[in-house]
Amino acid sequence: MDRLRLCFAGLKADCFLVSHLPNIHYLCGFTGSAGLLLVENSRSTLFTDSRYRFQAAEEVHGARVVIAPRGLVRALGGRLRRRGGRLKVAYSPTHVTVAQKAALDAAAGARVRWVDGGDAVERLRAVKDASELAKMRAAGQLISATMDDVIPAMKPGVTELEVAAQIEYQIKQRGGSGPSFETIVASGPRSAWAHARPSRKPLRKNELVVLDQGAILDGYCSDMTRTVFLGRAPARIKGMYSAVLQALEAAKAAIRPGVSAGDVDAVARRTLGSFSRFFTHSTGHGLGLEVHEMPRLGKDETTKLDEGMIVTVEPGVYVQGLGGIRIEDDVVVTRRGAEVLTTTPRDFLEI
Amino acid sequence: MDRLRLCFAGLKADCFLVSHLPNIHYLCGFTGSAGLLLVENSRSTLFTDSRYRFQAAEEVHGARVVIAPRGLVRALGGRLRRRGGRLKVAYSPTHVTVAQKAALDAAAGARVRWVDGGDAVERLRAVKDASELAKMRAAGQLISATMDDVIPAMKPGVTELEVAAQIEYQIKQRGGSGPSFETIVASGPRSAWAHARPSRKPLRKNELVVLDQGAILDGYCSDMTRTVFLGRAPARIKGMYSAVLQALEAAKAAIRPGVSAGDVDAVARRTLGSFSRFFTHSTGHGLGLEVHEMPRLGKDETTKLDEGMIVTVEPGVYVQGLGGIRIEDDVVVTRRGAEVLTTTPRDFLEI
Repeated sequence: MDRLRLCFAGLKADCFLVSHLPNIHYLCGFTGSAGLLLVENSRSTLFTDSRYRFQAAEEVHGARVVIAPRGLVRALGGRLRRRGGRLKVAYSPTHVTVAQKAALDAAAGARVRWVDGGDAVERLRAVKDASELAKMRAAGQLISATMDDVIPAMKPGVTELEVAAQIEYQIKQRGGSGPSFETIVASGPRSAWAHARPSRKPLRKNELVVLDQGAILDGYCSDMTRTVFLGRAPARIKGMYSAVLQALEAAKAAIRPGVSAGDVDAVARRTLGSFSRFFTHSTGHGLGLEVHEMPRLGKDETTKLDEGMIVTVEPGVYVQGLGGIRIEDDVVVTRRGAEVLTTTPRDFLEI
Repeated sequence: MDRLRLCFAGLKADCFLVSHLPNIHYLCGFTGSAGLLLVENSRSTLFTDSRYRFQAAEEVHGARVVIAPRGLVRALGGRLRRRGGRLKVAYSPTHVTVAQKAALDAAAGARVRWVDGGDAVERLRAVKDASELAKMRAAGQLISATMDDVIPAMKPGVTELEVAAQIEYQIKQRGGSGPSFETIVASGPRSAWAHARPSRKPLRKNELVVLDQGAILDGYCSDMTRTVFLGRAPARIKGMYSAVLQALEAAKAAIRPGVSAGDVDAVARRTLGSFSRFFTHSTGHGLGLEVHEMPRLGKDETTKLDEGMIVTVEPGVYVQGLGGIRIEDDVVVTRRGAEVLTTTPRDFLEI
């Protein structure tokens, strides 16, 4: 919260209203589903409802907790009005709906001026400290150990949903609080859907299977993709796989402090060569308390990578009718380049 | 979509921009994570991105699909500008952020006037048709069968996370696409947290355990809570349980077309008697494509229940230090009263 307070001057704001739950979690430790955090220079206040009375008392640090029986926005408005005088309050327009903003306006009254706080909290979150890095390493280990176990057991006849169930069961068995997003198990033609949901379709011989999954451990997310082939793959599939793997390794090798996110994306695309027209998404994204956060490794992104940032690297090619191949690792940006957190083997696997 | 078009006149709108993904799913079948649906009188258009090219082609009905390489909002703006003339576009301020609204304003240009479309789509969704009722019955059966299996196997020493893992594994094994929300397994003092997340804490003898879970099957959600005691319960716990069960049964008995949501809530509170001061949330909520939808069974809610609505009924009492008890069923409002979809026994269980 002190690092956020350092942004007040630049924003020309007297305080910051944090409404996005992962940002609240990051700043004061609260993990409930209803909260507003007002960060002032002298103190911070978390507004939540009666369901979270005990949980907030146990979790929150660095802020006093106000249980708001008549609504969070109303309680916040009361606090702002009591401060008196003209007040500039920063908030994040990407995390407040038009309806919520109207309610905030009404509750806060005419003396409050709202200031665009941009992604100030997200920028803080992008660079992980030592305790966060330790949690991210553990989350990467957890999903790698899970997939080391699940992949060899895959066979024709098992449904996509059964494989996903096995993965998510192991995540919790190994102490994770759950998957960091809906596990993707996409086989055959469905593997060409970059974001397919697992279905009751059974795996069949001579099919590609894309497995994309992550775990949440101590609040922090991992995200890893592997693609395997059931049976002996034709040369065309092997060529595609090899191109994707080379793109992954080249992009990871390009990662270091100071390089731009867009340059890493360009390396992946260039390495894919003629397959790059089948690469329909960006190369990666930041990872932490959320499974998608700053920075994005996309075309023309100018953000410079910084020591302590964590990103996914996940080139993929998708050919309708034939199938898709994606390989994804999580990496930390360190002084010596990319430290890779996900360790399940990447060699082409025919099972 | 035709039922939504009937609302245009009342809203004084020429068309409706649907941005909330479950609403898009409901209206045109698309289940991807990025979409904007423009419903016009003569036709409808779904804007999505290249990741969903194949999936949209397979899923979407009643709308043409536009893949928007330079952004959904920009493509939508182009369509609105091409229509020409002054145009009143309804949208939902509760589902559009301040930042998205600014982008929409810029893309659509000055000739578009935005109209508050309120919860027009949510109102349509609140009343389920026959095919939706069939899916909701199946989702209720799935979670009931899962819990019939999991509850007798609980014993001291197993962690909350392991029980949750078992529940979510069975949901997928039984063909569900996953849990409809993060499964709650809260034991001992943690059972007094109405929305506790499962932890690595082992279950212990002489503890209450609250189990709150749901499944998504064919896109539709169930949501059921049971509370059990590990060991022989003291009289005070038995008394609390009996009060909650009576409140559940009384509230279900009060449900019929024409009764107000607030009256059902009042019946639950009245039946809890002296325990009602420990009942810190509302009695229930609508259920369907989302696990929380219209109507809400809360204090002073004036919404009248209608045939075909589906709601949860879930009274609970939470006493810090002692623990919590909640029992929850899903019910359909029918001409003959409540049809109960969740069947796991509700008798007090000491295991």
